[in-house]
Amino acid sequence: MKIEILSIGNEILSGATIDTNFVYLASRLLEEGYQVAFHEVIPDDPKIMKEVFQRALNRSSIVITTGGLGPTIDDRTRDVTADVFEKKLVLSEEVKEYLIKRYGKGLSTIEIQSMVPEDTKLLKNEVGVAPGFFYEGKSSMFVFPGVPSEMKAMFENFALKEILELLSNEKKMYSKSMYLCHVSEHMVDPYLRDLERAYPDVEKGIYPGYGVLSIGFKVKESSEKKATGILDNCIDAIAEKFYTHVYSTEEKDIALAVHTHMTKHGLTLATAESCTGGNIAAKITEISGASNYFLGSIVSYSNHMKESVLKVRKQTLDAFGAVSEEVVKEMLEGAMQASGADYVMAVSGVAGPTGGTPQKPVGLVYCGLMKKGEEPHVAKILAKGAAKRHLVIEYTTNFMLGTLYRKVVYDITPFSNVKTSIPVSR
Amino acid sequence: MKIEILSIGNEILSGATIDTNFVYLASRLLEEGYQVAFHEVIPDDPKIMKEVFQRALNRSSIVITTGGLGPTIDDRTRDVTADVFEKKLVLSEEVKEYLIKRYGKGLSTIEIQSMVPEDTKLLKNEVGVAPGFFYEGKSSMFVFPGVPSEMKAMFENFALKEILELLSNEKKMYSKSMYLCHVSEHMVDPYLRDLERAYPDVEKGIYPGYGVLSIGFKVKESSEKKATGILDNCIDAIAEKFYTHVYSTEEKDIALAVHTHMTKHGLTLATAESCTGGNIAAKITEISGASNYFLGSIVSYSNHMKESVLKVRKQTLDAFGAVSEEVVKEMLEGAMQASGADYVMAVSGVAGPTGGTPQKPVGLVYCGLMKKGEEPHVAKILAKGAAKRHLVIEYTTNFMLGTLYRKVVYDITPFSNVKTSIPVSR
Repeated sequence: MKIEILSIGNEILSGATIDTNFVYLASRLLEEGYQVAFHEVIPDDPKIMKEVFQRALNRSSIVITTGGLGPTIDDRTRDVTADVFEKKLVLSEEVKEYLIKRYGKGLSTIEIQSMVPEDTKLLKNEVGVAPGFFYEGKSSMFVFPGVPSEMKAMFENFALKEILELLSNEKKMYSKSMYLCHVSEHMVDPYLRDLERAYPDVEKGIYPGYGVLSIGFKVKESSEKKATGILDNCIDAIAEKFYTHVYSTEEKDIALAVHTHMTKHGLTLATAESCTGGNIAAKITEISGASNYFLGSIVSYSNHMKESVLKVRKQTLDAFGAVSEEVVKEMLEGAMQASGADYVMAVSGVAGPTGGTPQKPVGLVYCGLMKKGEEPHVAKILAKGAAKRHLVIEYTTNFMLGTLYRKVVYDITPFSNVKTSIPVSR
Repeated sequence: MKIEILSIGNEILSGATIDTNFVYLASRLLEEGYQVAFHEVIPDDPKIMKEVFQRALNRSSIVITTGGLGPTIDDRTRDVTADVFEKKLVLSEEVKEYLIKRYGKGLSTIEIQSMVPEDTKLLKNEVGVAPGFFYEGKSSMFVFPGVPSEMKAMFENFALKEILELLSNEKKMYSKSMYLCHVSEHMVDPYLRDLERAYPDVEKGIYPGYGVLSIGFKVKESSEKKATGILDNCIDAIAEKFYTHVYSTEEKDIALAVHTHMTKHGLTLATAESCTGGNIAAKITEISGASNYFLGSIVSYSNHMKESVLKVRKQTLDAFGAVSEEVVKEMLEGAMQASGADYVMAVSGVAGPTGGTPQKPVGLVYCGLMKKGEEPHVAKILAKGAAKRHLVIEYTTNFMLGTLYRKVVYDITPFSNVKTSIPVSR
């Protein structure tokens, strides 16, 4: 049984919007054991949509569409689906009542948004307005809205169980991933080649991030037990070599690994950020419950705020400049003073693309970490090759979260792994 | 003449790799005046590739493929292309010499990488190893490697001029966009429907963000002047209705609109963030040169840091709770005190998904803005329908940046547009 995903929308075809819906659906289906066979992006043009829908239903057993379900003139998916299945559009009282319940009677588009093709099953939209639906037949079709949060909730809460039901007799693809920090692709590569010889049927992938690295293993097997055994052997072989670098075998987000450990052990954290501009705090607080361990961040972007809030001394700023070991040390002390946290982190650097000098080039970041009652640790890293500002910021954020993780979990001395420069881009 | 892009590779179909090649090619072609008509992602499977290549050549005049040109067993694009055009693969002495010149004779894959289908024109790879090529016929096909840096160089330096040549008799697509804040999709829709009557040939698109909205107009015309006239009329018609809501006709990023205005007028800003957790600061400082106007942010996630850094009084916190008008007022004053900025903004709310109460539900955010020497403005918004934590954060961030923009550019009283609740989704 083939699965095909169709993304509808001129904004995707024009390159203006990245098709995150496809990435989400393909990854989630693979997690469940099924690889997507085809993916096509098509314009909001009813004639083309009809032709592509029909071909997809011919070559694939499960067709999933995203986009084109809104109330406006360029939203055509509802009509085209009805046309392809030769069904009428009818007003769903269920949808109408649900919309009135959530938005009141004032919503001007209630009537339009309550229309669905007859003989389809409803997929409730718990996040937004446009309902989804699915048609079960020789080939089945799942129709989702294009707003990512709406599509995701609908997929997880209503559609997934229907899709798994349809696929229940298929051989599954099993996969496992592991997530590492402070390790580069070429350090891991030789061990993956060893695994290639030992397990030629396992698909292996390395996906470098900035300051983090994901490794994925996939195998098609008739039994889950056998697959799990093989995949666990692969994971263990890598983990044996990079034990204190593995922060998760479940979740890519390194902030979540930090979150889980800190919360479990009742530890608290505060940060003082200059060049990362609040990104470390934003990444930490994206996770619900962060307030259980994260006390706050002082984003001292100006020298004045370094002095007024973090009590960095004017002499230190004048003598060494804001991007210096000395200032980061005082930022650590200021953050500790203001927060009373168990751990504080501080960063100051040149995110670029402007502002670099021969002595302090773009990508240079002074990083600090201090445990309450211990000496501060400060080191400089050079995010070499990271031409882009946001990559310097992302790299520094992940690098700092990795440093904290390895300190609190494995008691690795902060920055003991730092060489003179770190190649940021792959 | 239709343009179609085919991306080849299991790693894209599995959702593990984002197809940045497609985004690049589609955006660049649109910049040149041509919209991509179709985009399909297909596996490294020769049978499927052949079928899809043939269909693409039937429905589109220009077919561009990326991926599958490497030296390994799963790289099949070379063979399949030769097969589709019924050509033999031949060793290109030109490629071989070029590879030896750049990599020496030691490169083990020289022979494989020098094979190209006969009667095709070579596209030199100045960055990597795999050469590209193109076949010119009734429908033409451009074959690129999948490594983004190699594809980009090949496209810009060799392929683009050939593509533009093929398209030289086509009418160009001209496009303009406008970006609005504090406006919802359904407020704009009636005016777009009016435009649909006045300019039926103009393609119109509304792309709602969270707290922001993009509107795009595209038209195919023989003359740039005529196109510009039409597109400007469309932009003007919407701008007339929503004048103080339009923050740009160039860039989607509302932080950039704020950045440009504040920098130009020498104004400074500081923020005090609770529920947004540093996201406002992170969004602002993503833009190079933010330090010219942004002084910093105090992310007072804990009550302790609200007191120690922002000098919010314990009595106020005890009496009204952290999520209250009174606390946000004191946060504004504290941020003003610490930063000395011309403008300060503060937010405190319930980002969820936990922590909501009947009195203070998830999505409730108290928002504050104060100009130096003026009274503070505080209002509450309810990010209704935003079930997800990161959407409450994103909505609040964009809403606050919009509020600041409208205050500094049009002197709109902060929060004068706030109703009891704001539907977040679309």
